[in-house]
Amino acid sequence: MIETLTAMMNRASVRRYTDEIPDEATVEAILRAGAQAPFAMQMFSVIVKRGGKLPWGAPLGLLICADVHRLSRIAAKRGWSVETNDLELLLFAIQDAAYAAQNCVIAAQSLGLGSCYIGAPIHQAAKLVEECRLPPKVFPLVLLVMGHPAENPEPRARYPLSFTAFEETYPDLSDEDVDEAMRAMDEGFLESGYYAKNKLKLPVPEGREDPFTFDDYSWTEHISRKLQWSPDATKLRDTLKACGFVV
Amino acid sequence: MIETLTAMMNRASVRRYTDEIPDEATVEAILRAGAQAPFAMQMFSVIVKRGGKLPWGAPLGLLICADVHRLSRIAAKRGWSVETNDLELLLFAIQDAAYAAQNCVIAAQSLGLGSCYIGAPIHQAAKLVEECRLPPKVFPLVLLVMGHPAENPEPRARYPLSFTAFEETYPDLSDEDVDEAMRAMDEGFLESGYYAKNKLKLPVPEGREDPFTFDDYSWTEHISRKLQWSPDATKLRDTLKACGFVV
Repeated sequence: MIETLTAMMNRASVRRYTDEIPDEATVEAILRAGAQAPFAMQMFSVIVKRGGKLPWGAPLGLLICADVHRLSRIAAKRGWSVETNDLELLLFAIQDAAYAAQNCVIAAQSLGLGSCYIGAPIHQAAKLVEECRLPPKVFPLVLLVMGHPAENPEPRARYPLSFTAFEETYPDLSDEDVDEAMRAMDEGFLESGYYAKNKLKLPVPEGREDPFTFDDYSWTEHISRKLQWSPDATKLRDTLKACGFVV
Repeated sequence: MIETLTAMMNRASVRRYTDEIPDEATVEAILRAGAQAPFAMQMFSVIVKRGGKLPWGAPLGLLICADVHRLSRIAAKRGWSVETNDLELLLFAIQDAAYAAQNCVIAAQSLGLGSCYIGAPIHQAAKLVEECRLPPKVFPLVLLVMGHPAENPEPRARYPLSFTAFEETYPDLSDEDVDEAMRAMDEGFLESGYYAKNKLKLPVPEGREDPFTFDDYSWTEHISRKLQWSPDATKLRDTLKACGFVV
């Protein structure tokens, strides 16, 4: 089983695909692997989207949803209603959906396909409800695009393990610990030329000067700029409401 | 890579473990596999808990947390604050944590260990904050216990694929579709004797008669009864607040 571990350690998100359409047996094997993940209550569903309008021209997309709709149908047949609050349902349904999704990622890789998560659906949920005719209590969480890879990227840099896994208690992370983690991430992404290659650089707010070029713009600056987005939760809360979840 | 797929299809949660302590190289390989999952922003951390007080006497537990704390430290060093609303941070951090967790499940299995998710931490968060000294913006999501298996359970029943994966749009599920899915689940769990073996039967509310015995009590009745829990979100919202997330 060392192949499984090696594959997981070598995986990197793929953003360029060939035109080849994954065959149906492959697609079914991926969906079955997703469906066999460990779950709280199978609170997930998958909308299979075929090429045409998917990001990077990918031939296949799995829209993974947090799904409480079917449970409510089942409970009704059993003479019960769903009483659990929406916030809790959502916290468990998102886990179920993510476990299924990650099994699909690994299954796809084991069958020679590349994949990439796209987190945008949570902001497009109202549109997706219409487009995919989602019933109430189904929240589109993440789009997993996949296909035969037309690139073979190296695994991306990650925090040192000492920055993510702790024995028994969460340590007081020192400034030096944070610096070390930042260095690992920034040097890793600079070495691979990730942001330069993808011409990916988030703008600074108007009036503020941007001191970074692609020679030094890297992961920690990029994610810090992302963390300026969406200060107000109202729109997201409304989107969740449009999907039948009041939080 | 067919081994990877086969392993994923044959996995079942393990609830009995031998006394053998997993060796450190194994634990590290599992943690590294978790850390190499695809992420939005590495918003996860793992508290490694060693035997003694873990469920089923498991020798190892990974408390997987949604973690925005380190990002805020990094952003501060970059001269930014975290502006994104807590609800959105949480939706992405839970995904990151779940992707890491599921990689750990598969890595553990590939190294001969069994595992089982325990969803209770979201309700014990306030206690876990103290016990594990979690800093603000860290939310304990799920406990993944693992160890050398002392049982070898068959994979559990799942919904038919036609009930979880849909082409392009979510179909109008008919009563017959729901019945078929319920039958698949209930017959599967009855055949394996899951609830009888585990003497697991949730009580009905006081005053209501329970028409079920272990001859017919199965998955759909069990989850329907679970869905009666926690009608009010106040406590969960307070717990999230105790972890620094206002939703």
